[in-house]
Amino acid sequence: MSWQDKLRKVEPYVAGEQPKIKNLIKLNTNENPYSPGIKVEEAIQHFQSSKLSLYPNPDADDLKHAIASYHHLKDNQVFIGNGSDEVLALTFLTCFNGQEPILFPDITYSFYPVYCDLFGISFQSQPLDEDFCIVKEDYYKPNSGIIFPNPNAPTGCLVSLEFIEDILKHNPESVVVIDEAYIDFGGQSAVSLLKDYPQLLIIQTFSKFRSLAGIRLGVALGNEELISKLYDVKNSFNSYPIDSLAQVIGKASMDDSDYIKENAQKIIKTREWVKRELKALDFEMPDSYANFVFAKHPRYDGEKLFQELRNRGVLVRHFDKPRISQYLRITIGTQSQMEKLIEEIKLILKGS
Amino acid sequence: MSWQDKLRKVEPYVAGEQPKIKNLIKLNTNENPYSPGIKVEEAIQHFQSSKLSLYPNPDADDLKHAIASYHHLKDNQVFIGNGSDEVLALTFLTCFNGQEPILFPDITYSFYPVYCDLFGISFQSQPLDEDFCIVKEDYYKPNSGIIFPNPNAPTGCLVSLEFIEDILKHNPESVVVIDEAYIDFGGQSAVSLLKDYPQLLIIQTFSKFRSLAGIRLGVALGNEELISKLYDVKNSFNSYPIDSLAQVIGKASMDDSDYIKENAQKIIKTREWVKRELKALDFEMPDSYANFVFAKHPRYDGEKLFQELRNRGVLVRHFDKPRISQYLRITIGTQSQMEKLIEEIKLILKGS
Repeated sequence: MSWQDKLRKVEPYVAGEQPKIKNLIKLNTNENPYSPGIKVEEAIQHFQSSKLSLYPNPDADDLKHAIASYHHLKDNQVFIGNGSDEVLALTFLTCFNGQEPILFPDITYSFYPVYCDLFGISFQSQPLDEDFCIVKEDYYKPNSGIIFPNPNAPTGCLVSLEFIEDILKHNPESVVVIDEAYIDFGGQSAVSLLKDYPQLLIIQTFSKFRSLAGIRLGVALGNEELISKLYDVKNSFNSYPIDSLAQVIGKASMDDSDYIKENAQKIIKTREWVKRELKALDFEMPDSYANFVFAKHPRYDGEKLFQELRNRGVLVRHFDKPRISQYLRITIGTQSQMEKLIEEIKLILKGS
Repeated sequence: MSWQDKLRKVEPYVAGEQPKIKNLIKLNTNENPYSPGIKVEEAIQHFQSSKLSLYPNPDADDLKHAIASYHHLKDNQVFIGNGSDEVLALTFLTCFNGQEPILFPDITYSFYPVYCDLFGISFQSQPLDEDFCIVKEDYYKPNSGIIFPNPNAPTGCLVSLEFIEDILKHNPESVVVIDEAYIDFGGQSAVSLLKDYPQLLIIQTFSKFRSLAGIRLGVALGNEELISKLYDVKNSFNSYPIDSLAQVIGKASMDDSDYIKENAQKIIKTREWVKRELKALDFEMPDSYANFVFAKHPRYDGEKLFQELRNRGVLVRHFDKPRISQYLRITIGTQSQMEKLIEEIKLILKGS
């Protein structure tokens, strides 16, 4: 057996590109077009670099307390990781160790099957219906865990708390993970269900709502026992995943939540405008509650439209995958960025 | 099967404490007593917080290039992770997938068996000899991988490049990992062996030599094939582990290497002074080449000495483990911090 034979072979997740093209309108990775805010700016300016010679607080206690207060939870109901991708990875490793497969939608965040491959977790994907809705009865069968985003990605479809509660009631013996990366753009968080369902785990991120994709902060909210097991696995993987600067930046963002909410309102307003404009151009799309829309044109090929837009300096996301290859996922940028997008789409559809 | 039964049960690694006691002389986690330098300070001051709304460069390309240049390697021979603990975790997950156990010393970085437990990797620990030296012949048997720090932790003992080369020659079929967290305090890096041994992987950190424990940067150096497999696993775990600020801070540190080397020379000088002082007080210790010493007194209990020092505001590290429970691991701080330490030890030994 060679040393190469002892290496793990996996098919990694492929993130949206981060191109270095000037003047590009970047609508491909669901970043927030607004800045993280003045309090974050000040936190960086006031940070003493000499502190960096010391290890960070291992569990980011001050930030954890701020997050707990925001959600009216106890501090030990909050887990913080290096971006919600790390939180998800550690959740898969911690929570999904039963004999049955875990369940998630066929069209969803494409990192889920990658984690399964990495950690040897079996899964059964459950097809969304024709309107891209999750069919809750598909999750009423033996499983080792359930995970889906709400709103779902890349469709933007939202489910209600009653819907989630039905799934929880049918699954008292599995951890049910609701991935709320996009919840703050019009959805209702499942945090209020935590008190009644100890097997519920909610994952959120600072990347979208809080304009902090660059600083890598993700959060899990759950009951103390579940959160403590997540910390045990985290402390078996990396003692200090959150650096000292990220901790004060995250705290500053929590202290600036009113400003952050105003930005989300602007994004929602622009999103609804984009929906109307696209519909007027005959686009079809599920009703998105996220900071993106997921749209296809009945008479214009999805990949071709992606390429045409890219050639004109507008980058959106196209997934070459079954059922969704005709769709584009378009991040909601500023109003003026989206006006430019609509303008370019009109020109493309006109063939000019 | 309850949801609790599906949770992973592990015994996490316990890092040295990060107490919030004022005026404490903190010599317990091998932090560098000098600041990370003016270039790091400037990088933070000049950072535009608005950039944080975008995802970071996924593979920290500029920082990667700076590290490659420093070591005279190609960019694709460098892997960067969120602290060397994450690099180690991903290395265990990527490289140690054979049938035989992996091998490491019985007295070594205590995170290694924790990774094995987390990922279900079997291991056989190999006893150090009476002088705490690694016995290289112990590593001449079938295995799925070998790992040890050089200098070893918490002993500080260094092995030569010839020693490492002998182990590599006897192990063409396993990845051999040299954990060089402390190499820059007087040892010789194995980087020069990379061109001849494709199965060699070297792990380094920004936490000790570069005074950046607070920013979480770790590095693996190896041949392109091995490094590319590490990236595949990283990209199956977390697309963006290094935040945008950490990338520019790491780059600034690489640009300030002369200053960093001067600090290392000061630490080495202080370490040699500490060795002489401790020996004059009858302490016994292996000859450390790291930024710590590992010492025991023949007539004073290790744990008691740890407690006495803590009561006097000097925090060192004590491991309640077989073979080493009489020893203290003492980080080398500034000369004046170490003078205070010696003064307190003298008072304790005198019983006053």
